[in-house]
Formats: sequence, structure tokens, C-alpha cells
Amino acid sequence: MRWCRFQSGDGEPTYGLVEGDRVVEVQGTPFGAYSRSAVSHALADVQLLIPVMPSVFYAAGVNYREHITEMAKIGAVDPVFPAAADVGYRANNALVADGHPIVIPADATDLVQYEGELVVVFAKDCYRVSEEEALDYVLGYTIGNDVSERTWQRTDRTLWRAKNTDTFNPMGPWIETDLEPDGLKVTIRLNGRKVFTYGVGDAIFSVRHYISRMSQYMTLHAGDVLWMGTDGPTENMKHGDVVEIEIPGIGVLRNPVVREGM
Amino acid sequence: MRWCRFQSGDGEPTYGLVEGDRVVEVQGTPFGAYSRSAVSHALADVQLLIPVMPSVFYAAGVNYREHITEMAKIGAVDPVFPAAADVGYRANNALVADGHPIVIPADATDLVQYEGELVVVFAKDCYRVSEEEALDYVLGYTIGNDVSERTWQRTDRTLWRAKNTDTFNPMGPWIETDLEPDGLKVTIRLNGRKVFTYGVGDAIFSVRHYISRMSQYMTLHAGDVLWMGTDGPTENMKHGDVVEIEIPGIGVLRNPVVREGM
Repeated sequence: MRWCRFQSGDGEPTYGLVEGDRVVEVQGTPFGAYSRSAVSHALADVQLLIPVMPSVFYAAGVNYREHITEMAKIGAVDPVFPAAADVGYRANNALVADGHPIVIPADATDLVQYEGELVVVFAKDCYRVSEEEALDYVLGYTIGNDVSERTWQRTDRTLWRAKNTDTFNPMGPWIETDLEPDGLKVTIRLNGRKVFTYGVGDAIFSVRHYISRMSQYMTLHAGDVLWMGTDGPTENMKHGDVVEIEIPGIGVLRNPVVREGM
Repeated sequence: MRWCRFQSGDGEPTYGLVEGDRVVEVQGTPFGAYSRSAVSHALADVQLLIPVMPSVFYAAGVNYREHITEMAKIGAVDPVFPAAADVGYRANNALVADGHPIVIPADATDLVQYEGELVVVFAKDCYRVSEEEALDYVLGYTIGNDVSERTWQRTDRTLWRAKNTDTFNPMGPWIETDLEPDGLKVTIRLNGRKVFTYGVGDAIFSVRHYISRMSQYMTLHAGDVLWMGTDGPTENMKHGDVVEIEIPGIGVLRNPVVREGM
């Protein structure tokens, strides 16, 4: 199943099921009881929203060797691979939907870069589960772009504005439920040019491992999201660019880039 | 005004106004339209909940000189004072209400310590405001205890379990609206013994400065919270202890401490 969240008329955001080029309205949510309604819309006519607003927005951060190596090169330091699956955080204010502009603040440097990654969405509360059980708590998967201002990332004490400036976390377009994460491929395109492809399964720590380890200390709640990190080098995005993250089996997350004041 | 959130019967959490030893039920929330109802309860009969569930849980982290100096001593390093008000994050899973036990996991060391601090609660969305305007966006103030496992804090790549283990962020008991933050005093008591008192106004970066700076890059939303950091040395808490954070003008946040498996 393919769950989306969209604006239907002037009302509250509504969940729907994407079936081909149609969206079937649903009463309820994917996190509780729901039923299909008799109402459907052409997908092209629907304004997709962020597919879920999490109570906690988890991010694996550094989780792929080639990305860590490339980032270390820029900083002229030796790459340091994480010794354990220590999860980090992003913030909901930065979330925007598929199609929404990424807005680069006027005072950001040119080093504003994409990071295309798989996003895990939890179906139900999860506490102290094994790696074998971990995926039983997953509703499905969507796509994230962890936009990063590299100068701020190096100079600030935390990642607050480097990675959490408003619009810096596009997520969508929807949540696909019937997938095995380890076999997925992520492709990033800038203005239609493929810049990198990597396999989710090349992660240092797998989806199953992250979920199991996190859940030993904290309850993961229905609707929480876990962004799995990116691989490879990343390039600058500038005003007028369009960045796409594609994960076959899910879809394409596509966002235009705008620099404030241009 | 003193806003609380409580469980009234089997229904949804309800907002109320604390007036003396009574709680007046309110229809609506402090973040939008509301009206007083004719129903009130004895405060002693009411089960207080976390006063607000934020969409983003901001934490100033290191913001007081004596705390930074004491933490540096433990790590046998020189104290490093922050150069700018770079905000950090905590996670909603760790929030518990006044009176709820702080549960120390079985594998935590003895170095589980309180950090008593002022919490700012936002009233409405706030973007690119000046320091002079900053407090116009504040609903009021509550109290937080940023419980910290110091071994994990030093060894893990992020603060995920050191500061975000379930129950590690007591917040409450309610939100007091009519206060000037800089003049407030914070007193921490362990089993009734006063362990430290400090002035909120001794912070390296003030409430006004944090809000203004954060809002240059991110929209602070109604109901979001900003924990301002703690001052002074901190002590271990063990099974059977009771920790209290008092801020005169707000009240007392009191939580018992339980070690898992004891």
C-alpha cells in the first residue's frame, strides 16, 4: 500500500491511498483504525503534504563509509566511522512536502548540499525489540533530503541551522508499505543529471539494527520517523536548481531550490 | 495565569487553569481560542500531565559558566564556553509529568544526574523577531529536569540515550504566564536537601537572545518548548531518591527516582 497525506478542500489534512494515478480518501489514519471512502481524486489534482508529522524526528546521521570519507576530505581530516548506532535528531520545523521549494537563507554560503536518504516510518509503539522483530513495527518507507549548509555544520556547536533551517528537510512523496529496506537503491539527480547512486544495504548499521538498539532505551512511537543517512559525495545546490531523490519501489522526491532575495 | 493539562475522566487530555487549590476546566487550548467552563476540580484530585507536547523540543544545553566548569572538571579538560547561542534538541519520548518516576535503566552507571532548568513555552508562531519582541511570542514558563547519564554523555556520538532515555525529561507542573524570566531563581533539592540555587539571569545567552537568534532561521511554533540549561555542579540520583526543582513564581517539579530491576 502507498499512504499519502493531502489537502482535500479547505478541511483538515486527510490520509489517502495512492492507487495508480488516483488517490482514494481514507477515514482515519495508517496508525489506527481506518476505512476506505467512496471518494477518490486524480493524483495530479491533489496537493501532497508531508506524509506524517512525527513526535520525534530521528536521523542516523553518519552511516555510510563513502559519505564519511568525502566529508572528511572537505575538512582535511581523517574519516572517523561511528563505533555504534548512536542516533541523532532533526526538527519538524524543517520538514516540507514533495514539490515545496528548499529556501536557502540569504546569509548561507554556496555550500548548501543535498543528502538523499531512506526514511523509516513507525506503525506502532516499539520498545525493546530484537533485530528480528524490528521491521514488524514499521509502517513503511518514504524519502528524505537532509539538506545541509556545510559551513554552519563545521562551525556551529550543534547542527541547529546547518540541518534544521526551515525547508531543509523535504520528505515524501508518500509512504510505501510493501518493501524490504536492505535491497533498495537511492539515486540523486541534480537538474536531471544523476549525481550518485548507492545501496541502502551498504549502511554501516542496518535499519533493523538501529531500531532494535534505539528501542532498548526509548519508546519509538507510531508516526515517528528515522532517516537512515546518505552515501557518497554531495554537490552544492543553487537558486533555480531542481533536486530529485529516487528510490525505485517508493518514488521520487523532487524539490526546487530558491535562494532568498533572488 | 497558570495553565495545566490534566486527565479528566476517561476522555482526552484537557487544559485547565490552576487557581489556588482548584483547577478550572477550559474548552480549547492556550494556543488558540478557549473559554472557561463551569467545571472545576480540587487540584489534589487531578492527575497532571505534561503541560504541552511540543512539535520541536529545543534545549540550550551548555549555557551557564559554573555548570560548564564543573562538567569540564569531571572530564579533566579545560572548560569551553559556547561562542554563540547554538540550540540543541531533546526528544518527546523522554518527557514525563510532575510526579512521574524517573526510571534509570539497569545498564546505566551510577552517574545519573539532575539538571534543573527554566522552560520557555511558545504561544504562537515566531519567525525573525528581535530580542525586544521575543517575549511577545512566549506563553509562559514551566520547569524541566534534563536528567543525564554522564558516562553515555561522554562516550556516545550523540546525546541520544544520555539525555533522551524514556522518563529522562520531567517537565511541569504547569505553565505560568505572568513572569519576567531574567529575575527567576532555580533551586534544586535532593531528598529535601538544597543542593544548588542559581539565577536564570546568569545565563551566557538570555531567553530573549536565544529566541531572536533561533527565529532567524527557523519558525518556532505554538507549543514548542525551549529548555534554558542549568548551572552549578550536579549530583548522582539513586533508587528511592526524590528530586525537586523549584522556581518561585512557577512552583515545584518533583519526581521520584527508580532504578530498573530494584
